[in-house]
Amino acid sequence: MGSPRRDGNSAALGEAARRGADAAGTLATLLFLDDYIQGFLPDLRRAGAPADRYAELFLEHFLPADGALICTPIYWYGMSAQTKAFFDRSFTHYAGSGPEPERVMARMTGKRLGLAVASEETYPGAALGIVHQVQEYARYTHSDFVGYVHGAGNRRGEVARDPRRPLEAAEQLGREFFTRTYSDYRIETPRSRTVWESEASALASTPGVLP
Amino acid sequence: MGSPRRDGNSAALGEAARRGADAAGTLATLLFLDDYIQGFLPDLRRAGAPADRYAELFLEHFLPADGALICTPIYWYGMSAQTKAFFDRSFTHYAGSGPEPERVMARMTGKRLGLAVASEETYPGAALGIVHQVQEYARYTHSDFVGYVHGAGNRRGEVARDPRRPLEAAEQLGREFFTRTYSDYRIETPRSRTVWESEASALASTPGVLP
Amino acid sequence: MGSPRRDGNSAALGEAARRGADAAGTLATLLFLDDYIQGFLPDLRRAGAPADRYAELFLEHFLPADGALICTPIYWYGMSAQTKAFFDRSFTHYAGSGPEPERVMARMTGKRLGLAVASEETYPGAALGIVHQVQEYARYTHSDFVGYVHGAGNRRGEVARDPRRPLEAAEQLGREFFTRTYSDYRIETPRSRTVWESEASALASTPGVLP
Amino acid sequence: MGSPRRDGNSAALGEAARRGADAAGTLATLLFLDDYIQGFLPDLRRAGAPADRYAELFLEHFLPADGALICTPIYWYGMSAQTKAFFDRSFTHYAGSGPEPERVMARMTGKRLGLAVASEETYPGAALGIVHQVQEYARYTHSDFVGYVHGAGNRRGEVARDPRRPLEAAEQLGREFFTRTYSDYRIETPRSRTVWESEASALASTPGVLP
Repeated sequence: MGSPRRDGNSAALGEAARRGADAAGTLATLLFLDDYIQGFLPDLRRAGAPADRYAELFLEHFLPADGALICTPIYWYGMSAQTKAFFDRSFTHYAGSGPEPERVMARMTGKRLGLAVASEETYPGAALGIVHQVQEYARYTHSDFVGYVHGAGNRRGEVARDPRRPLEAAEQLGREFFTRTYSDYRIETPRSRTVWESEASALASTPGVLP
Repeated sequence: MGSPRRDGNSAALGEAARRGADAAGTLATLLFLDDYIQGFLPDLRRAGAPADRYAELFLEHFLPADGALICTPIYWYGMSAQTKAFFDRSFTHYAGSGPEPERVMARMTGKRLGLAVASEETYPGAALGIVHQVQEYARYTHSDFVGYVHGAGNRRGEVARDPRRPLEAAEQLGREFFTRTYSDYRIETPRSRTVWESEASALASTPGVLP
Repeated sequence: MGSPRRDGNSAALGEAARRGADAAGTLATLLFLDDYIQGFLPDLRRAGAPADRYAELFLEHFLPADGALICTPIYWYGMSAQTKAFFDRSFTHYAGSGPEPERVMARMTGKRLGLAVASEETYPGAALGIVHQVQEYARYTHSDFVGYVHGAGNRRGEVARDPRRPLEAAEQLGREFFTRTYSDYRIETPRSRTVWESEASALASTPGVLP
Repeated sequence: MGSPRRDGNSAALGEAARRGADAAGTLATLLFLDDYIQGFLPDLRRAGAPADRYAELFLEHFLPADGALICTPIYWYGMSAQTKAFFDRSFTHYAGSGPEPERVMARMTGKRLGLAVASEETYPGAALGIVHQVQEYARYTHSDFVGYVHGAGNRRGEVARDPRRPLEAAEQLGREFFTRTYSDYRIETPRSRTVWESEASALASTPGVLP
């Protein structure tokens, strides 16, 4: 939860996703970044990391998890600064060499990722920069960016009244977080002629379909 | 419909949107670009426009319409070339000066626009370029980009089996095409504290909420 | 300067831009965000703004300025969290109603903006999200986003050895910051047939040229 | 050259790049897509490919080349439809199975790519969708997207008067097309602490630097 508001609209999306995860028997925890992060990545040659609970959040919650849903309000067409700091601060744990940075980098890869954003405006272009950012992070870390939900709201909780039903979409994303098909191909990726496999045939690798 | 396939996945999204429009009593026509467009915008000083039915499509269908849903397969991370040519070729009708270009430009503005794309891959970043393009077009022409649907499929029609239910989303988009709230603010835009208005209060303009 | 490093590569870009500004007789000040910003935008109903010098930075430096060049390292495909916090925190000064928020909002508009980013990687797609974000901010505030420079470097200062010569580009941007032509049209924008005007003809409004 | 105009601004950028390639002793050919491509990718089950010279362009020029610079005007915030068709039509040559599609796919990979665009407007966000598209194509085909040049102009050739000097940048890109450092990392990519290597140390792989 990258919003400073506990009862805001991005928090409502996160809560809905957790309901979905619960329904699917997935263990999910809702954490507010503001409880763990109080400052920015400093120049580590001149200063230490801020005296907050980031290490606990990153090492004990994020790294062991199989996936993470990033929930953030859209502030000025980007994720909130606290959400951004969550990413920036990870540097202190994987920088340098040795077994610990190696362990951290290994644990940063292969997760499932999702993104839920809330904004006052409804236009689809508002979140392009954030989607791009999470997609690039997913590629860099060999993670699967399995779902994206955008809801609109300003007053606390009114995302529930968005007729595009983002709460429902968030709940569905939570439910299917670890079962959704994900694909991001390269030219040589073996693939089936059918994206959604039914009974058979799925293994017939047929490159040569339009990406 | 910007797909060369009559029974492809982007066509299925378009068909679903039309069902939604029908249900809402909205008059909607499904047109395949391939029936109207056979070539590219040429250098008009050296050659005339291709001898095809683009003028009919643009002048008799697009310009009089109150809105348009653009349906296209994602080919190489962009809209199909025929879909792109639909935009490029409009130049022949608004270029120059005089009452006809002026009429055309006036009729190009103020529409409602939607985008439905189908791709083989599921990753959310695949369509960023297309969404950006339609958003910019919407701004340039003072149009409202009211909805975006992304479904995955490769074999004809299998978008119906995408568990994210894009056909349902397309149908909903068709139904609400002319009633959805749309917002894309500037700093001075008067706005309500609530995005989704209920009974009262909606007129209280309160700038100073985060964009 | 959104980098925690005083002698880093984005700082070098900012320094080069200042040299350019100096050469053009433009008064420019280099400010490090880390000297002014220590925390995030909180939920203002539950907590006050962090006890730092943000108000001084925003009210005494940013608001009176005619333009701002945002310099940031690319961290995880976005601007640094401190740079993002610069934008987020502005909310505390324009929120609500009354003459002060109105004055702030009025002073936020109409500036010239630039962006200089440094990254370890060279691929052009790395900064797409940041460019999008600054472009949207520019539109929302009716500002002119007059230039963008991307340099590569990792070790402190080695951006100077990037063969694409970003320091030169940054210096040029600083020099021309307030004289560069800027355009971001809408369909009705009157325009000349020539983008770069020489002596005459510039006023001949000829809509109907391809955007 | 994706512009219908032989003497247009994107053509001028391409010509400048060729001068640079010549200066570096690189064999480069300028080809106008309009000479080779007359139509769109059809539904290959219902119709054959257009009767034009695309096969010659793709098989005899593009596939054997070590790199390609894509030059296109920005039409409606995307590449021209003829440029897009260049990509779409490749499907006819790699679709299906057998030695020929395999040979084609193998030859599509590992090239160096560049992008030069010309637009009437100067705002940096105009080309975001095209840059994204080429970057994704580069990744899918394991190609190196080594450079991007954006110039502004409307009247034929006036890009030469753009004070940002895009012709110079295009010439430089042509000169360095096959020598520029290119990087697009994943978390495990071995890397040096210095991006721009001088004499020594380059082999010291130090993961743990911020991406």
